[in-house]
Amino acid sequence: MKLIDALNWRYAAKRMNGEKVPQDKIENILEATRLSASSMGLQPYSIINVENNEVKKKLQPAAYNQPQIVESSNLLIFAAWENVTEENVNDYITNITQTRGVTAASLAGFRASLMGIVDGRTQEQKHQWSARQAYIAFGTAIAAAAIEEVDATPMEGFIPEAVDEILGLKEKGLRSVTILALGYRDSENDSLANAKKVRRDREKLILKVA
Amino acid sequence: MKLIDALNWRYAAKRMNGEKVPQDKIENILEATRLSASSMGLQPYSIINVENNEVKKKLQPAAYNQPQIVESSNLLIFAAWENVTEENVNDYITNITQTRGVTAASLAGFRASLMGIVDGRTQEQKHQWSARQAYIAFGTAIAAAAIEEVDATPMEGFIPEAVDEILGLKEKGLRSVTILALGYRDSENDSLANAKKVRRDREKLILKVA
Repeated sequence: MKLIDALNWRYAAKRMNGEKVPQDKIENILEATRLSASSMGLQPYSIINVENNEVKKKLQPAAYNQPQIVESSNLLIFAAWENVTEENVNDYITNITQTRGVTAASLAGFRASLMGIVDGRTQEQKHQWSARQAYIAFGTAIAAAAIEEVDATPMEGFIPEAVDEILGLKEKGLRSVTILALGYRDSENDSLANAKKVRRDREKLILKVA
Repeated sequence: MKLIDALNWRYAAKRMNGEKVPQDKIENILEATRLSASSMGLQPYSIINVENNEVKKKLQPAAYNQPQIVESSNLLIFAAWENVTEENVNDYITNITQTRGVTAASLAGFRASLMGIVDGRTQEQKHQWSARQAYIAFGTAIAAAAIEEVDATPMEGFIPEAVDEILGLKEKGLRSVTILALGYRDSENDSLANAKKVRRDREKLILKVA
């Protein structure tokens, strides 16, 4: 589907019907998410793809028992790095040298910019910055799902510490920041399935300067 | 262009050629951005669309003199609300009642959830939350630009207070959080124009739980 049509078609489904999303569609959504832009290209987050129904059941109370958690096909948990370290920078520089066949020396200036973030901010600031980058990927994933005609419910309503505990994210240096439930709307049981989309007026949202 | 092809085609242009982006493409990018998801649909941000070259010149020093600021066709400044107030909630509830033809009384529960954010968080927390919502729109705008084959450089490297001052954002209750420069790549002068895209390996970025 075309992007604007897809964005008009989509909505945050409050109920899903439990149907599985075909694997090729999941792959397309994940690949679009992987290709997302991020500041300096660092991608300081991971995405946990939960398909297992037992795990979804464990997560449901941590998300205030919202039904989409267990009615979804896949839950994408966006988890931002809790810190940005020199090791992260070194891994990234190695990735660039290998992908592009350039020397690490040629990236000295770029490395210094990355180290400016590592050394110049508190751990909490680095996590918050990482979370913003994860939200770019989150936005991409929402658009990608809509294009694939897969319903996607963005969910901030959960207890991050509880989700992190269930998924063992702390040990991985990650903190959950937002969730995207992928699946198919249950139009019969979701009163919002046919509601008109509400968005701020163009002239209030998009401002022009003279 | 298809989304994944578009995301593979795009990169963060370091130099642009000054060519104007046709108005219909700008409109498509802005409309996709307006249709972006946000928590509870509040859209707690504005986007300032800067086309005026004099304004771009004024902004350039605030963005460490990066050339794309003046070489772009349009600069989209994403500015998050510095606070979320009861007035904002009331405006939103009015928008829903008018768009969907429902009563305000039928939205009492939803209004209470929104007021939970207004009353339950500090102003800085509300701004940071608003910024994350703006980053969803930012991600959508980057994808939309790529589909339109318009180059888009995401830019966090600027002094927010200086940009806010130049654009008079403080008086509007807004704080700039990120910038998207739209235009066309200058492949001759941008050494990264033909560089291979670097992204984290799929298996490191996307984690599975058993």
